Amino acid sequence: VSVYTQVAPEEIQPLLDAHGLGQCQSLKGIAAGIENSNYFLSTTKGEYVLTLFERADPEALPCYLKLMAAAAHDGIPCPDPVTPLTTLAGRPAVIITRLSGGTVDAPTPEQSFQTGAWLARLHLALAAPELGRGLPPSHDRALVRERFERNLDKAKVHAEWGGLVPLWQGWVERFMTIPAGLPGGVIHGDLFTDNVLFDGGRLSGLIDFYYACSDAWVLDLAITMNAWPHAEAVAEGYRSVRALHETEEAALHPCRIFAALRFMISRLDDALNPREGEMVQIKDPLEYHRKVANLLGESAGL
Amino acid sequence: VSVYTQVAPEEIQPLLDAHGLGQCQSLKGIAAGIENSNYFLSTTKGEYVLTLFERADPEALPCYLKLMAAAAHDGIPCPDPVTPLTTLAGRPAVIITRLSGGTVDAPTPEQSFQTGAWLARLHLALAAPELGRGLPPSHDRALVRERFERNLDKAKVHAEWGGLVPLWQGWVERFMTIPAGLPGGVIHGDLFTDNVLFDGGRLSGLIDFYYACSDAWVLDLAITMNAWPHAEAVAEGYRSVRALHETEEAALHPCRIFAALRFMISRLDDALNPREGEMVQIKDPLEYHRKVANLLGESAGL
Repeated sequence: VSVYTQVAPEEIQPLLDAHGLGQCQSLKGIAAGIENSNYFLSTTKGEYVLTLFERADPEALPCYLKLMAAAAHDGIPCPDPVTPLTTLAGRPAVIITRLSGGTVDAPTPEQSFQTGAWLARLHLALAAPELGRGLPPSHDRALVRERFERNLDKAKVHAEWGGLVPLWQGWVERFMTIPAGLPGGVIHGDLFTDNVLFDGGRLSGLIDFYYACSDAWVLDLAITMNAWPHAEAVAEGYRSVRALHETEEAALHPCRIFAALRFMISRLDDALNPREGEMVQIKDPLEYHRKVANLLGESAGL
Repeated sequence: VSVYTQVAPEEIQPLLDAHGLGQCQSLKGIAAGIENSNYFLSTTKGEYVLTLFERADPEALPCYLKLMAAAAHDGIPCPDPVTPLTTLAGRPAVIITRLSGGTVDAPTPEQSFQTGAWLARLHLALAAPELGRGLPPSHDRALVRERFERNLDKAKVHAEWGGLVPLWQGWVERFMTIPAGLPGGVIHGDLFTDNVLFDGGRLSGLIDFYYACSDAWVLDLAITMNAWPHAEAVAEGYRSVRALHETEEAALHPCRIFAALRFMISRLDDALNPREGEMVQIKDPLEYHRKVANLLGESAGL
């Protein structure tokens, strides 16, 4: 059972030599994420993170690295690749800069505000259309709907969730869309609390760009509001940097409903189809069912 | 670099045979926790969790298992050991029941309320004095102070934290204590959001009893309030099951200050003294500095 790729310091030295990154002093596994194996890497030249990709589309990886480089060079606190995409222990791999700080258990309204503000700065930093090329569609409405329909048979016979399927079908019919013509560009797409680092009070990192895609900016704000305990503070922070157009203000609530539905469906898919040999994350599959229900102002009878 | 103990299904079958737990069908690593390696284990008899202890005191492990068994038998939704403590892949190991649900990213006030209510029920379920025997002291005031003093020299020369050390010394002098004579018994000691499972809206599990100890009940409430984004809802939930005595109400705020200081010191110790060959968790080491400062109603100048 391969749950986490293990790398020995000797294996990594040739890569460090090839890019002038000094001598490996330590390599420590990071307990975070299930898509990648990550290590804190200390060398005689500095502090880095080594990422081995366990699951990402290898075609798209150079596009994600280009995004991070562009954002970092524009002053966004995010990882900056210091090697090109390479291969290590049989997997695509890259070395990136290490950011200070860590995730917080219970974000404050002020930290939520900062997250919204940096999300807006990220949007502006990644506005060049060429940065969107080659990114797989993470939030495509038709693909999300297909993903739901692929799981219908399994969901219907599930002991706990079976009874909710007719309700979900109605939601998918009505809410699997967002208004057209919204301003956009590259969005992060996955700015959950475990993808934002703080160092003391200050936001010190936006990480994990591997769900970035081209879409409406306000959808990214909606995803982030859904994922943070102080949604309104996230929105205020966003607006403090980039005012929302009238069309975006009107689209915010529909986008939150679509985004909650999308994550409900992806968690459902992950729960019903665990992949062999991968680590499992324990996340409540119905958390996003409840978010949809709350956003609709309905009691879902749970 | 051993970051996670890997176990093959063949290795576990003799243990299943010895306890009538059926044939192993799948074993999937769980991406959670750094103290233990955990697997979801499916057998022909049911769904379980296999835990290998990477770091816990082996002397104390039977005491923790006894607690979980007692709480589970008293109706608390917590893991129930189905084997005694054994050895697997060279480590202490146990198989426990698997609970439904998962952790939530952004707990709601209602989920926080439920957490407080179940914490109170847990206290009442574990009130028998013999259950406290053999549990190491996780929150002992003198030991926390020693832990702080052991790190003083390293902390003073730390680039980011060095300037805070004089403030911390003052805090340790004034707040490393809680009122005497408070009612208590076995406390969970670590009821962070990643140790509570929800299934849809309903709390479905309290997990990770490996910091349980004998101490004041209100200290456990204080630890939980500090760790959850809706502290007041946690307290209301607790009081809905078990009314706080006047002495406990008066002690709640001092306990929150002590508890924040204790977790600030343990994170500081972990950050300054990473253990070789263990996985690193990225948690903001100053999150609890800020909590102490906020609880004191002071701006810490960060």
